[in-house]
Amino acid sequence: MKKLKIVTIGGGSSYTPELIDGFIKRYDELPVTDFYLLDIEEGKEKLEIVGKLAQRMVEEAGIPMNIHLTLDREAALKDADFVTTQLRVGFLDARINDEKIPLKYGVLGQETTGPGGFMKAQRTIPVLLDICKAMEKWCPNAWLINFTNPAGIVTEAITRHSAIKTIGICSGANSMMMDIAKAYDVKKADIYARIIGLNHLIFADKIYVKGDDLTDDFIEKLAVGSANNSLKNIPDIGFTARFARALHMYPISYLKYYFLTREMTETAIRDSEKKGTRGEQTREIEKKLFELYQDPNLNHKPKELEQRGGAWYSDTACSIISSIFNDKKEVHVVNTVNNGTTPDLPDHVTLETNAVIDKNGAHPLAYGRLPVKIRGLIQSVKAYEELTVEAAVTGDYATALLALSINPIVPSAAIAEQILDEYLEVNHAYLPQYKR
Amino acid sequence: MKKLKIVTIGGGSSYTPELIDGFIKRYDELPVTDFYLLDIEEGKEKLEIVGKLAQRMVEEAGIPMNIHLTLDREAALKDADFVTTQLRVGFLDARINDEKIPLKYGVLGQETTGPGGFMKAQRTIPVLLDICKAMEKWCPNAWLINFTNPAGIVTEAITRHSAIKTIGICSGANSMMMDIAKAYDVKKADIYARIIGLNHLIFADKIYVKGDDLTDDFIEKLAVGSANNSLKNIPDIGFTARFARALHMYPISYLKYYFLTREMTETAIRDSEKKGTRGEQTREIEKKLFELYQDPNLNHKPKELEQRGGAWYSDTACSIISSIFNDKKEVHVVNTVNNGTTPDLPDHVTLETNAVIDKNGAHPLAYGRLPVKIRGLIQSVKAYEELTVEAAVTGDYATALLALSINPIVPSAAIAEQILDEYLEVNHAYLPQYKR
Amino acid sequence: MKKLKIVTIGGGSSYTPELIDGFIKRYDELPVTDFYLLDIEEGKEKLEIVGKLAQRMVEEAGIPMNIHLTLDREAALKDADFVTTQLRVGFLDARINDEKIPLKYGVLGQETTGPGGFMKAQRTIPVLLDICKAMEKWCPNAWLINFTNPAGIVTEAITRHSAIKTIGICSGANSMMMDIAKAYDVKKADIYARIIGLNHLIFADKIYVKGDDLTDDFIEKLAVGSANNSLKNIPDIGFTARFARALHMYPISYLKYYFLTREMTETAIRDSEKKGTRGEQTREIEKKLFELYQDPNLNHKPKELEQRGGAWYSDTACSIISSIFNDKKEVHVVNTVNNGTTPDLPDHVTLETNAVIDKNGAHPLAYGRLPVKIRGLIQSVKAYEELTVEAAVTGDYATALLALSINPIVPSAAIAEQILDEYLEVNHAYLPQYKR
Amino acid sequence: MKKLKIVTIGGGSSYTPELIDGFIKRYDELPVTDFYLLDIEEGKEKLEIVGKLAQRMVEEAGIPMNIHLTLDREAALKDADFVTTQLRVGFLDARINDEKIPLKYGVLGQETTGPGGFMKAQRTIPVLLDICKAMEKWCPNAWLINFTNPAGIVTEAITRHSAIKTIGICSGANSMMMDIAKAYDVKKADIYARIIGLNHLIFADKIYVKGDDLTDDFIEKLAVGSANNSLKNIPDIGFTARFARALHMYPISYLKYYFLTREMTETAIRDSEKKGTRGEQTREIEKKLFELYQDPNLNHKPKELEQRGGAWYSDTACSIISSIFNDKKEVHVVNTVNNGTTPDLPDHVTLETNAVIDKNGAHPLAYGRLPVKIRGLIQSVKAYEELTVEAAVTGDYATALLALSINPIVPSAAIAEQILDEYLEVNHAYLPQYKR
Repeated sequence: MKKLKIVTIGGGSSYTPELIDGFIKRYDELPVTDFYLLDIEEGKEKLEIVGKLAQRMVEEAGIPMNIHLTLDREAALKDADFVTTQLRVGFLDARINDEKIPLKYGVLGQETTGPGGFMKAQRTIPVLLDICKAMEKWCPNAWLINFTNPAGIVTEAITRHSAIKTIGICSGANSMMMDIAKAYDVKKADIYARIIGLNHLIFADKIYVKGDDLTDDFIEKLAVGSANNSLKNIPDIGFTARFARALHMYPISYLKYYFLTREMTETAIRDSEKKGTRGEQTREIEKKLFELYQDPNLNHKPKELEQRGGAWYSDTACSIISSIFNDKKEVHVVNTVNNGTTPDLPDHVTLETNAVIDKNGAHPLAYGRLPVKIRGLIQSVKAYEELTVEAAVTGDYATALLALSINPIVPSAAIAEQILDEYLEVNHAYLPQYKR
Repeated sequence: MKKLKIVTIGGGSSYTPELIDGFIKRYDELPVTDFYLLDIEEGKEKLEIVGKLAQRMVEEAGIPMNIHLTLDREAALKDADFVTTQLRVGFLDARINDEKIPLKYGVLGQETTGPGGFMKAQRTIPVLLDICKAMEKWCPNAWLINFTNPAGIVTEAITRHSAIKTIGICSGANSMMMDIAKAYDVKKADIYARIIGLNHLIFADKIYVKGDDLTDDFIEKLAVGSANNSLKNIPDIGFTARFARALHMYPISYLKYYFLTREMTETAIRDSEKKGTRGEQTREIEKKLFELYQDPNLNHKPKELEQRGGAWYSDTACSIISSIFNDKKEVHVVNTVNNGTTPDLPDHVTLETNAVIDKNGAHPLAYGRLPVKIRGLIQSVKAYEELTVEAAVTGDYATALLALSINPIVPSAAIAEQILDEYLEVNHAYLPQYKR
Repeated sequence: MKKLKIVTIGGGSSYTPELIDGFIKRYDELPVTDFYLLDIEEGKEKLEIVGKLAQRMVEEAGIPMNIHLTLDREAALKDADFVTTQLRVGFLDARINDEKIPLKYGVLGQETTGPGGFMKAQRTIPVLLDICKAMEKWCPNAWLINFTNPAGIVTEAITRHSAIKTIGICSGANSMMMDIAKAYDVKKADIYARIIGLNHLIFADKIYVKGDDLTDDFIEKLAVGSANNSLKNIPDIGFTARFARALHMYPISYLKYYFLTREMTETAIRDSEKKGTRGEQTREIEKKLFELYQDPNLNHKPKELEQRGGAWYSDTACSIISSIFNDKKEVHVVNTVNNGTTPDLPDHVTLETNAVIDKNGAHPLAYGRLPVKIRGLIQSVKAYEELTVEAAVTGDYATALLALSINPIVPSAAIAEQILDEYLEVNHAYLPQYKR
Repeated sequence: MKKLKIVTIGGGSSYTPELIDGFIKRYDELPVTDFYLLDIEEGKEKLEIVGKLAQRMVEEAGIPMNIHLTLDREAALKDADFVTTQLRVGFLDARINDEKIPLKYGVLGQETTGPGGFMKAQRTIPVLLDICKAMEKWCPNAWLINFTNPAGIVTEAITRHSAIKTIGICSGANSMMMDIAKAYDVKKADIYARIIGLNHLIFADKIYVKGDDLTDDFIEKLAVGSANNSLKNIPDIGFTARFARALHMYPISYLKYYFLTREMTETAIRDSEKKGTRGEQTREIEKKLFELYQDPNLNHKPKELEQRGGAWYSDTACSIISSIFNDKKEVHVVNTVNNGTTPDLPDHVTLETNAVIDKNGAHPLAYGRLPVKIRGLIQSVKAYEELTVEAAVTGDYATALLALSINPIVPSAAIAEQILDEYLEVNHAYLPQYKR
């Protein structure tokens, strides 16, 4: 049998059983012979726990997929076909800092779209670029399937600063399509949505159910509240009916951070006080998950994992890897280089949109000019993202300050400066690129 | 059973058996209930001949597809699902004029890329736009699948001057992929080529065999002559090995009209004297075909039809119609609106490239900047095409003169003027838009 | 002597003496024979007062310039050469509403960049387009020199919806150059700044003193506080030194509304309570000005006018009119159509930048790509401006709601909706385009 | 007195007296203290002759401008303020080869727009880039004012491959404006033309006489033959009246090489046989000029120099240098980087158009989209030019072959290959970058 080797960096993540479950289900089309779970010394314990669960899952499924647990990067990467990443530099403690420091200044932390995402990018991008360098050495032809948040920004860093082939993925669009499917009581496969935007900032401007354009109908469902977006990790503050109709697109829930900044900020402050930040809640959920995972009788993905908020994560990853591996030319929503998809963004930046996926990568469908109503927001967040990547790569304070100042969620450059200074202070162990 | 109605305008064409053959083969996925062959009074006799052959073919196949022969546009178009066009305004006599007049001035006529294509566009576009108006009335939701040459120019006219949904198709790209398949002794389905350009002016810049990038290898085959382009209707003058390697793309045979203008012109002059122009040869072939078609025992597509030069015509049309009808999201090479596919052409013009085809039309894959080596030619021919459409719609002499003058095959604006004047003279019956 | 006729619409404005003063000073190069001050019935009293002052000023200067006071639009516009506008639909009361309603929701009103500017545009654009129609009838070749705020938005409305030749002007850039001149103790004529952006959202990214590039030096002056922006109507909250250095451009004071939104909002709330909004303060200043203007012995521009905040207003207008009239090809900073000046904005929108001004209008200097650090903000405000113009022309509620929601100063679409509803209520007399 | 040092590379050129004459006339605004005429060993004799004439001219004028004759590059360049180039690598013999080799194949040589221009670029660009390197060392802040043909291509090479500030100039646009001035019997200063295109491929699409738009009128003059283009070095074959009206722009005479390729080729062949190529004629003219120059009594620019075809050469150079030196912000037609001037060309390429010239260089006026009728030609020649620069810098045969093949004047890639092979053979002494 031909070898098919997959590596997951951050293999000790609580998400891993989800991913393994996906590969088990698709074994017929993706006959993985070797699955490496790679982690670092500090993650060794978790890796052991989750890795053994993975091995029990594979055994139960009765398939010849070898699960390897390792801390040895070379062993893991050598001749790999696909590398996925789900790492979190600084673990959840760093995330909790990301969220709490801005809140002190009355600013949303938000780990992907807000200052939290900026800070996570500063920690993560150098690590990812280092992984890319290792890949250039040990598996230069492998595909890097990047989940690591902020996925759009991280993918842009890789495409600009590495020769490794990469696609950035996110479960958000699939989650939206699942919501549409629910509203019409059909299967997700019956739904097709045209998606445009950036990661966690996407709009579905055309919604097809079994090939029929039901955009108007679905927008009305949104307006009257009979359809909804079910992302578990985002507070449920709805748009008004008039705004939903005016926008006339289906926005991902994360867009509330931009369109309802004040209300989302107030909710975050309240929630932080009452039930902790999302990061603190996640720490609790993870703790319980790892308790479950330790059960030697558990040999399947536990139901409780769904609460974690990454429902479509595994499905998204596996189907895209399969479309590459089997040269399927399926259309998926991914993060990839603009390259003219819309002339309203620079050619070299990443965007999130529908793309044909085959053995040679992601080929986005030309979109043309962005509608004015969403153009400015997309452009302004993209400018923030470009500076965020530049800051992460250069460690230049001025660039970092500008990046944070132009993030639309941040209401003041003076406050951005204060947040940045605190951020750099508490994160300095993870920021070798910033000279002090 | 649900109705599926297809209309072919210019149903009396000698190509019709090819098309019918394609639909018979794909009856399972495209269960056509009614197939209308529509023609005009002058084409009645041929329509009868070819139509009866079509009926015999369907009968032999044993499928419940009704072939209707009619001169009544309303009856044909009423509630149609797909309309295909293969008409020739002025018949072959007009084409022969298109070819011979320029030859008098030592200029290639060429019925698609040269002055002949310009003149054919002037006759054809008003007729096609009139058909579109009829469709807006009787079948506003139907798809117009346009084969009529010059297919790129005609498709651009329709997209700019009509609300009818349209895709322009050509067998050229499929023919190129077949040539690649032959060179590797694989099936055409194993080949994927990235195609960019304009109709009859396309380049394959990436060639994949079973998903593997064999571009370099195939270019070398071209250079040493072990692969070739087999378009029957184009004289076999090869590029030099050094040019083939320098270009490092697979050019459609028609590109010889641009890259080897002098040699192709000399050949056309010689051929015209020795064996008649391509139009004159076609007249002979067609005469023989219609003699064959009249045989009441003939109930299948005759082999001699292949000589006619449209080998992949039916395959192209049927597979694209099926991809629309069945919402397949297959990738095909079609003529459609640029809309940002490459920023090196205006957004509103048509180009020929790979596109996802589904129930909602053609969605081209973003290509990005054109390589410099092919950029200028594509841009300059597109400018010619835009003026050609404008001249055909307005009947403005100055626009027509400019169009013909900037066609790269025409070596002089002064000669363009002489050709144009003769053209307008002999074609005046077909050019109501030009005021005299 | 050849006639040179100038018309000022909103002639009863307190600014008029400034404008008249400018024309008196430049009489040699701009020999105005007839100066029409046009106003509406409600402004008649002020027109009389300011008009008589204007007449005394001209008499004192001893030049043959006839000042005409009129309410008759046709008489004023007939055969005019230049038309300037300085009108305020709904007078200062409307402005005070524009400012106060948002403040109730903790949102900056700001009469040009904030919701106040949006509302002012809704009232003003229909009136201006009506004036353009009158001009098309009575003086189709006249130049419309538009000062009316929000000047960029209003100019865009005119360029898109009228055939009248127009240039939008603002004293902001001249004021910035005066600040630079002060910092170096040179004359304003010794300063040249490359300016890019939108009205009230401009950046000087190159600063030349007597032709030498002193950008770095001036930025450092800004950072350490030894240079400053002196716009009287904008609260004096400075950028931090680190932000000034990071931005490394000279931003117009209005940019504090975007970069220091929170601080500016808090200041506006505090000021509103303590000393009234800027509109309320202006009402007081104007009252005093008109008392002064009534003095029959006053025959020159009174010093107190400077407090009004339009210091460079007259200078800007007169020098641009002179550059047109005398075909001077001088470079000025104006609002004009992008037309490729920067590919980061659509071709058809207005921007504010350096342009050659001659008899045939404004010819902006190509700028190329916008620096990332300012790109997103400019693009996002431009999107807001485009929707603002569209809302003003169509009176479409959904467009208005989207416009206000995407203004970067507005922190929530839900609050935008509440502000909009109050706005439409109190302004309904001025909004015939909005159907109720 | 402050030093103002000018260096002319190729100082022994027959054009030098024209240039010196221009500086003498403008001494008041351009008080040149030191004028270096630099040449190479092979040009020493001519340098002596022309240099002494220059010294006599200055003496006669009675101004304190020191004329230095030197073969020492460092001495010449050290601390220079402006460097002009008028060199001819390989002298006239190389030019004659450039012209004659293509003619053997029935192809126009043409020393700027045709294959001759390609070949000249291959010889010239390495030399110019070497001069730039020397300038980076000895006068990094000097301006390089490049006349050397093909001026557009050479300027593009410098802007892309050197940090030296440069403006490419050509007398063509001034010559066109002089022709317009003649047609209206006014001074050249009364004419303003909007110019767009590439060097030797420019169109005047707006023609103003004393500020009034007389475009229509002048086009009609062209059509009926009462205005004309007087370039002495281009055969006088006119456009037809209908073409002139259809084009509705004023094309520089060089455009006949593109629009009347066949007629111009036939003329070139005939002329070459009858009176020699333009290069051979030039050799005769130059011989006579140098005989004149040797006359120790000659102390002014001789009349015979006008025949040489560079009438506006000196005027163009001096006025542009003065506009830089005196920070004048005058509008001149120059070759400079596109940078968004028109989105129909890449940002980084050079074009020839109106630009504001000041101490900081050339700032082209935004032009926007190119009219379709001229767009394709400009784009296709620009693609040729880009490959020509790349070939000259890399010495890559394939790039050279592609460049020559896509030049619109060359009718066949196979013939391009033959011409190229002969070219490389006879020029090998001047082509170190091409490995054999």
